[in-house]
Amino acid sequence: MAIFVALQSPEVEVLGLTTIYGNVYTSLATRNALHLLEVAGRTDIPVAEGSHVTITKGTKLRIADFVHGADGLGNLNFPPPNGKPIEQSAASFLVDQANKYPGEITLVALGPLTNIALAIQLDPAFAKNIGKVVILGGAFAVNGNVNPAAEANIFGDPDSADIVFTSGADILAVGINVTHQVLFTDADREKLAASNGKLAQYLCKILDCYYLYHYDAYSIKGVYLHDPATMIAAIDPSLFTWTEGAVRVQTNGIARGLTILYNKQKRFEEETEWTDKPSVKVAVTVDAPRVVKLVMDRLISS
Amino acid sequence: MAIFVALQSPEVEVLGLTTIYGNVYTSLATRNALHLLEVAGRTDIPVAEGSHVTITKGTKLRIADFVHGADGLGNLNFPPPNGKPIEQSAASFLVDQANKYPGEITLVALGPLTNIALAIQLDPAFAKNIGKVVILGGAFAVNGNVNPAAEANIFGDPDSADIVFTSGADILAVGINVTHQVLFTDADREKLAASNGKLAQYLCKILDCYYLYHYDAYSIKGVYLHDPATMIAAIDPSLFTWTEGAVRVQTNGIARGLTILYNKQKRFEEETEWTDKPSVKVAVTVDAPRVVKLVMDRLISS
Repeated sequence: MAIFVALQSPEVEVLGLTTIYGNVYTSLATRNALHLLEVAGRTDIPVAEGSHVTITKGTKLRIADFVHGADGLGNLNFPPPNGKPIEQSAASFLVDQANKYPGEITLVALGPLTNIALAIQLDPAFAKNIGKVVILGGAFAVNGNVNPAAEANIFGDPDSADIVFTSGADILAVGINVTHQVLFTDADREKLAASNGKLAQYLCKILDCYYLYHYDAYSIKGVYLHDPATMIAAIDPSLFTWTEGAVRVQTNGIARGLTILYNKQKRFEEETEWTDKPSVKVAVTVDAPRVVKLVMDRLISS
Repeated sequence: MAIFVALQSPEVEVLGLTTIYGNVYTSLATRNALHLLEVAGRTDIPVAEGSHVTITKGTKLRIADFVHGADGLGNLNFPPPNGKPIEQSAASFLVDQANKYPGEITLVALGPLTNIALAIQLDPAFAKNIGKVVILGGAFAVNGNVNPAAEANIFGDPDSADIVFTSGADILAVGINVTHQVLFTDADREKLAASNGKLAQYLCKILDCYYLYHYDAYSIKGVYLHDPATMIAAIDPSLFTWTEGAVRVQTNGIARGLTILYNKQKRFEEETEWTDKPSVKVAVTVDAPRVVKLVMDRLISS
């Protein structure tokens, strides 16, 4: 849904898609990215395959195949795509694009942050050259969605997340404390289904699985628009309010994947792990009705 | 201040004081407990000395001597007490009292939770026999006061805290998210100083250090009544509102000492470290004006 919103937004020029594990393994994510571009008739956009493993190799991947189905697209048995990913890895593609258009690119990160951490390790100037990094990730001062401590994208690779958050890049993070306010209801879905948009029609078909998951996990009839809301944050950050501070990620123990924002309200006696770390912006509130309407408008116009 | 509030409260019969490191080392805490009972004329109350080390021996103690002074009592050079602690350790004293009055004792824990964890290890029935455990500890969904992750009492011995929170005892936890709302202002202090209460007079003398610390750390002219508010929570929990859920403590890494409450709003797909752990009560809001007034009334009446 977030990819379709980007493709349908006049403010956005999509330079490429990079893939990562999370809801499915990376190879399947690559296949799905190619498939979605074919559905949208945008096979001109390159797909760069991302890492198949976390940055600290040996960590078992968590693949949440119960969220969007085993195929990541609602278990509808779509045929394999005709296209292929480019030869370049996601990290290398990101580095090249940032060098080509220094300060101009917005990177929208909707999965675990492995590719971005690898780009930072590949090129020390990447954090400076990339324009903005808009991250869907974290559970700031609320329970996570993998367990009470951690949100899924950060939990997927906490070490990479800590590298990215402390890299000095211009980061905007949107956590589930905010995206849980952006609910796409049954009525919204019916409206989408009643529209003539080709992409809208496609999305309505694959959403069943996601609706069932929300009903099971949260007892709600509706779905959270985590990724589309983050795409909208990249397009118009003024629909959100933001706070600033250093964010660190716990990388082990029962709170592995927890994000902690230092709000600067206290001067601590001792030096802390947040001291001297660069500030990032973290979403605090969202104009949810306007975000849902924007998502809807873009999808219906397709 | 919390000890004096207890001694001045008609609802409370103080069965004993147990000591623990935190603001000072345990030996000095014992000396201070004996001293305070002499100031209050209550040398009939036994003092049981607590552990000198965390439950996982070898952990370096954090002694916050900048909060209440190197002596823990505002650096006023009080003479040593005449009294002595009882022979029994704090943990053993707690176990004996709980066995003597099963279900009837309220244990008010105002420091690191080592003694209580040791009591649980000493007697498997302790968690059942102790009536209530009211804990000043944790930073629930807010930054800590040692660092952005951890509150001081939990940070002092995170392993003990996790043992206590998961013990099955009837626990009420009051975190700094709540006690930071209970502010004792300059005006309150003047009112205390203008009273004739002996204990009020004594407290006004030792508070300078604590005021300076708050001004340095928080830029406020006033002090947080962490410990007295928790004593009031033990006396009248209806001045607070409470939520219930399992609480776990992160015991290592940058978020060491962090407390995480599972609010049960999501059914997680996977089993978590919170699954099947007993629920405790955690304070959510406080009627701060009434708590401050109660503290003041008890101290002025002395």
